[in-house]
Amino acid sequence: MLTILGSSAALPLYKRHNASQVLQAGKRMIMIDCGDGTQHQCTRYGVSLHKLDMLLISHLHGDHFFGIFALLNNMQMVGRTQKFYIFAPPDLADLLRLQFKVTDSVFRFEIVFKGLPTDSIDVFFEDDSITIATLPLNHRIKPCNGFLVREKVKPTKIKPHSLPPDLAGAVYISLKNGQDVYDEAGKLLYRAEDYTFVPPSMLYAYCSDTAYTPSLVPLLAGVDMLYHEATFMQEDLTRAIETYHSTTEQAGQIALDAGVGKLLIGHISAKYPDYEPLLQETRKIFPNTEFAVEGERFVW
Amino acid sequence: MLTILGSSAALPLYKRHNASQVLQAGKRMIMIDCGDGTQHQCTRYGVSLHKLDMLLISHLHGDHFFGIFALLNNMQMVGRTQKFYIFAPPDLADLLRLQFKVTDSVFRFEIVFKGLPTDSIDVFFEDDSITIATLPLNHRIKPCNGFLVREKVKPTKIKPHSLPPDLAGAVYISLKNGQDVYDEAGKLLYRAEDYTFVPPSMLYAYCSDTAYTPSLVPLLAGVDMLYHEATFMQEDLTRAIETYHSTTEQAGQIALDAGVGKLLIGHISAKYPDYEPLLQETRKIFPNTEFAVEGERFVW
Repeated sequence: MLTILGSSAALPLYKRHNASQVLQAGKRMIMIDCGDGTQHQCTRYGVSLHKLDMLLISHLHGDHFFGIFALLNNMQMVGRTQKFYIFAPPDLADLLRLQFKVTDSVFRFEIVFKGLPTDSIDVFFEDDSITIATLPLNHRIKPCNGFLVREKVKPTKIKPHSLPPDLAGAVYISLKNGQDVYDEAGKLLYRAEDYTFVPPSMLYAYCSDTAYTPSLVPLLAGVDMLYHEATFMQEDLTRAIETYHSTTEQAGQIALDAGVGKLLIGHISAKYPDYEPLLQETRKIFPNTEFAVEGERFVW
Repeated sequence: MLTILGSSAALPLYKRHNASQVLQAGKRMIMIDCGDGTQHQCTRYGVSLHKLDMLLISHLHGDHFFGIFALLNNMQMVGRTQKFYIFAPPDLADLLRLQFKVTDSVFRFEIVFKGLPTDSIDVFFEDDSITIATLPLNHRIKPCNGFLVREKVKPTKIKPHSLPPDLAGAVYISLKNGQDVYDEAGKLLYRAEDYTFVPPSMLYAYCSDTAYTPSLVPLLAGVDMLYHEATFMQEDLTRAIETYHSTTEQAGQIALDAGVGKLLIGHISAKYPDYEPLLQETRKIFPNTEFAVEGERFVW
């Protein structure tokens, strides 16, 4: 599940906020980007500062990371104790270090910072439930990384209400392990595949900020949901090219060429009071598109 | 006129925001403190990023300055060209410099930074309409400055609708300059003091964050409006002392002892969902108290 906290490009007008979103994948709660004021969006939309596992920062333009300072301070104030991971361009470490020094900050929870590589595809996080890799984007500032979050194959589960509630625990365990269950005479009682299922795993991709980059297409194969920036309408293509951003149609084209399940667009310019025309323009290329409305939750 | 943008202590809950306010004094528009998300409050309450002349930062706890990065970025994005002054603890300069470097920021407007002195009373800004001085506060982090903004005596104005509209311009000018006007026979036509007035000048003081500091009292003589933090109710006095903050009654006592015109309290802790009990408790000591409700404008 993905919760959108900010859908605005750099200048946040019309009640939109700077880039931030929270992805629940595997057993991890992952914040991606953290613009100024993200702390308020967390409060507004019920994102727990205790439960976030990590923050991924795509690039060091302010609208993607200025909220990190307040986020960390607030985690301290609400009494967080759990380790917090930050994956970001390496220079952010210097800025955080200096900020902690001048504000005389000490944290009761461990902050693990890892600088992300530039211009490569690199699995930088892995546990038993997910992997996260960088996607090389093309923006004015380097490095600028997108992210590919892959849920691993999930453990087999028993279909709800498919078995009698008083069944012996050993039978449950056998079925969950994929073993059929027989009676003493060797007669088949329960066929594992009839009573179990493997919950679907998802593959999520985040591409913001970036100029139109067709080389992303093969990297997005099999993606269930793609968030791709669409800062400008197609008529502002020249401006998109100048600023290393994408248009609606370009976002749609990437989704179409990669054959993703669903496209979410966001990061729209302050020149557009309403997102609807951007959404309609994108849907002409890729019909299964939604706008990343703040506060909305998307599933796949 | 004072516009409140944030009335919360460090953890901003209950739709309150971190410290920030905008004071119109003389011909200057002055922002005092700038917590995370202040850019959004500016948009919400109609504060123009073109018209702000300067930002005063009291101290380097994040809830008082984390919004400066986005504020400066947004000034750039809306095309500001006018010089912008920042008066703040000296260490902020290093942090801004590093931030500009890692975010590859270049500004089209001039930013003039001046580090403020520690623990002294110092007039650090003066023009033909105002002076601004530091007030030495007592907080965990040093330096921590309050601010005393004094409007100079304003130019004489003609009382509205007091003179016939078709009167010769020369008569207006004489009266504005305090000269009585006579006819050719030497008869008094207009006595300057009957047709003119001097608009009141104001003296505004900002004291946040600070432990109860009676040595401020003589420095606040003649203050028309005092903003004083009241982070805690009186029953939480111990917590106030531990954290170098003030209680409601302490804020009221400072206002009473200094004989200020009006007291505004703010910077209240996240432990209080409602400001009303804090306001009532302060009023028992100093009746002419208001709570610094966000979005409200206060005059004196």
